[in-house]
Amino acid sequence: EMREQLRDYHDNDIAQSLKYLNRAERNLLYSALDAEWLAEIISYIDDPVEYVDEIGIDKLSAIINEMDADDAVDLWENIDESVKVKLRPMIDDQTKAAILLINSYDDDEVGSLITTNYICIHQSLTIRQAMHELVRQAGENDNIATIYVVDGRNRFCGAIDLKDLIVARENVPLDSLISYAYPYLLDHEKISDSIEKIKDYAEDSLPVLNRDKKIIGIITAQDVVEAVDDELGEDYAKLAGLSAEEDLNETIAESIKKRLPWLIILLFLGMGVSTVVGAFEGVVAVLPVVICFQSLILDMAGNVGTQSLAVTIRVLMDENLSAKDKLHLAAKEMKVGSCNGALLGVMALVFLGVYIVLFKGYSAANAFLISGCVGLSLLAAIVISSLVGTLVPMLFHKVKIDPAVASGPLITTINDLVAVVTYYGLAWVFLIDLFHLV
Amino acid sequence: EMREQLRDYHDNDIAQSLKYLNRAERNLLYSALDAEWLAEIISYIDDPVEYVDEIGIDKLSAIINEMDADDAVDLWENIDESVKVKLRPMIDDQTKAAILLINSYDDDEVGSLITTNYICIHQSLTIRQAMHELVRQAGENDNIATIYVVDGRNRFCGAIDLKDLIVARENVPLDSLISYAYPYLLDHEKISDSIEKIKDYAEDSLPVLNRDKKIIGIITAQDVVEAVDDELGEDYAKLAGLSAEEDLNETIAESIKKRLPWLIILLFLGMGVSTVVGAFEGVVAVLPVVICFQSLILDMAGNVGTQSLAVTIRVLMDENLSAKDKLHLAAKEMKVGSCNGALLGVMALVFLGVYIVLFKGYSAANAFLISGCVGLSLLAAIVISSLVGTLVPMLFHKVKIDPAVASGPLITTINDLVAVVTYYGLAWVFLIDLFHLV
Ligand SMILES: [Mg+2]
Ligand SMILES: [Mg+2]
Ligand SMILES: [Mg+2]
Ligand SMILES: [Mg+2]
Ligand SMILES: [Mg+2]
Ligand SMILES: [Mg+2]
Ligand SMILES: [Mg+2]
Ligand SMILES: [Mg+2]
Ligand SMILES: [Mg+2]
Ligand SMILES: [Mg+2]
Ligand SMILES: [Mg+2]
Ligand SMILES: [Mg+2]
Ligand SMILES: [Mg+2]
Repeated sequence: EMREQLRDYHDNDIAQSLKYLNRAERNLLYSALDAEWLAEIISYIDDPVEYVDEIGIDKLSAIINEMDADDAVDLWENIDESVKVKLRPMIDDQTKAAILLINSYDDDEVGSLITTNYICIHQSLTIRQAMHELVRQAGENDNIATIYVVDGRNRFCGAIDLKDLIVARENVPLDSLISYAYPYLLDHEKISDSIEKIKDYAEDSLPVLNRDKKIIGIITAQDVVEAVDDELGEDYAKLAGLSAEEDLNETIAESIKKRLPWLIILLFLGMGVSTVVGAFEGVVAVLPVVICFQSLILDMAGNVGTQSLAVTIRVLMDENLSAKDKLHLAAKEMKVGSCNGALLGVMALVFLGVYIVLFKGYSAANAFLISGCVGLSLLAAIVISSLVGTLVPMLFHKVKIDPAVASGPLITTINDLVAVVTYYGLAWVFLIDLFHLV
Repeated sequence: EMREQLRDYHDNDIAQSLKYLNRAERNLLYSALDAEWLAEIISYIDDPVEYVDEIGIDKLSAIINEMDADDAVDLWENIDESVKVKLRPMIDDQTKAAILLINSYDDDEVGSLITTNYICIHQSLTIRQAMHELVRQAGENDNIATIYVVDGRNRFCGAIDLKDLIVARENVPLDSLISYAYPYLLDHEKISDSIEKIKDYAEDSLPVLNRDKKIIGIITAQDVVEAVDDELGEDYAKLAGLSAEEDLNETIAESIKKRLPWLIILLFLGMGVSTVVGAFEGVVAVLPVVICFQSLILDMAGNVGTQSLAVTIRVLMDENLSAKDKLHLAAKEMKVGSCNGALLGVMALVFLGVYIVLFKGYSAANAFLISGCVGLSLLAAIVISSLVGTLVPMLFHKVKIDPAVASGPLITTINDLVAVVTYYGLAWVFLIDLFHLV
């Protein structure tokens, strides 16, 4: 009767409710449900280890044998070695082979995303035979919306939309339903390179082939959601100077490990900037008012650089750019930077000029000379930051270094240096040398 | 024969190849393919307007009538008003109603994502009748993997997995196949609030209900991919201080519009910081060496704040935090900040001390007093930035302002202010007042 009631609920809802049950209630559930069902439920749990410990070793091995290969891999990774030793002899050969296959791929290769849970039929079947084969395989495999077709040598040759098979008359040849140029992925393709392509096909599943054109598995739309989430989450983390995504359960040691490397790099780059600022100590000593605006110019250069960086990284990730496109993008960033810089420069000139007259006691002429320096530096810093924020990630992309990781600190440093030199340089030449404010 | 060859290709591949054909070849294609097929192809094109102009008004209206409702909405938005006037009388009532329905929802509501392309059967059917109904509706509707079930009053009451229907024996009651507590979404839910839930169910499609429990449409896994991509892309853009995502085709005016608002806000906040720096002009005038390290301390505070901000925003988005979780997160950020700050502070103390002795000609004692000030300020600035970077987004989240938008500038400003006051304050007290370096 418990089984009957639970039938009505989504496996994810059952999975999420486990944490509200006590140990005895969970044990009741484990014994009431069969391994296949428990396999589905466990695949929805983010951190299944604690429950795994509660399930007896016999049931656990049965669950793993029933699981989708990709979920079995996820679970297997989180099981204690002591338990694995006992489990290994009880896992069937097919599941073992699937786990080995998926684990043979790097985390960033398409092969690591596959599940072996799909329907595959032979090209030479009739519609009736195909339907019969579908019903037979559907008992074992969930992803039935697309039926994959292989030729006499077991090589992938096309796909049938289940919908077409269901509505087809019995007397038409199966051949007429097969898409022979159906898209596929190769097992060793990089996920980040193919994710846009995968998204574009918007299919329930896509087949993954090895170099012999044999189907090794499929990628489902749900796996694509996860992969997109991971890819973007990673880029997000990198833009913020984290080595990887963090979540709530991270330990302090893990967090420090993800953050400290960037901070140390940035500290030393910042020290480099400091020595350049040091070269202008003389300017500050005679005209201390200029230091008020250093942070303003550096911050604005940094903000503009980050904007250009973010746009460039997304464009690089989304599209395959020709050299012409890149030139176009850089030119556009320059133009946007010039417009924004000119506007912000004029605003700084006006507002800061008034401020210097009112609160710093300079004459109007001298005040606007100083704020003019700030405005001009702001314009220069913004234009150059836009360009640097575009060119640096393109350069890294060109030499196959992930621009999302490497660009941030380099751009910050270049922009800081340019801004400092421009600002203090202008102050020196204009305010001290030319107009003798001191 | 052209039709027969094209049958083998994926609609997305045909769509992407259009741009390599000339106008005459495309016209041939438009007349060879029926409206239903063209509808599928056009739904894969990012920017279909140029092709739409080439297609005659009769065919175009037929295409729109065949399209999935959500794709029709996308296309309709991009058609010229002059063409729309001619099209309107030719669009059938069902399509018109679907377009109106989808457009009645805000862009951030779940209802804006739906398609009306799904299979829906009555609760009281037999297995045989259900299968018959499926075949009938599958001619019109593509998303057949989940079959939605309504009760006598046409209200959503559950769902059937197509797989279960296909493998079911004819004599079992349909009732036993129906999941009666199947998950659903409400039309006015915010996408950003429900996206994690949608991802978690990992279904091919989920039903969307209005408040009368009637199904108004479904969200497919492909729409979820798009929505996840949009949500994360938006957060990414906001972290970089852009009001929205940009792509390659953006005009300069559009780019400026997306970037300038933040830059202006940041300019004025930066001016605020400048006035505070101005209060310490006296320190700089007597001890100009301190300005060398201002950029270092401010930059590091900014970097640490951005890390904490990014982590907090992702955690806020991913999970429903209790007050206790929030306290835990803030405490963790403090601890991580303290460890990182202490380490970076000591590094600054050592390396900058040596640098000041070697290049600035100070005595070792005075040099390490100065670098000690830098190290201590660095520690203080990093700890406080970690905390500010965590609390500010939580605060905005609490008062229902998108933390991804509002947090960045506020955090930067607070961190800059804290860093400036700490650094120059310490320099004043220690270096000038206490140890009389000048
Ligand atoms: Mg299964
Ligand atoms: Mg997986
Ligand atoms: Mg299709
Ligand atoms: Mg899977
Ligand atoms: Mg990437
Ligand atoms: Mg900065
Ligand atoms: Mg995109
Ligand atoms: Mg259709
Ligand atoms: Mg859509
Ligand atoms: Mg299911
Ligand atoms: Mg759709
Ligand atoms: Mg959001
Ligand atoms: Mg996530």
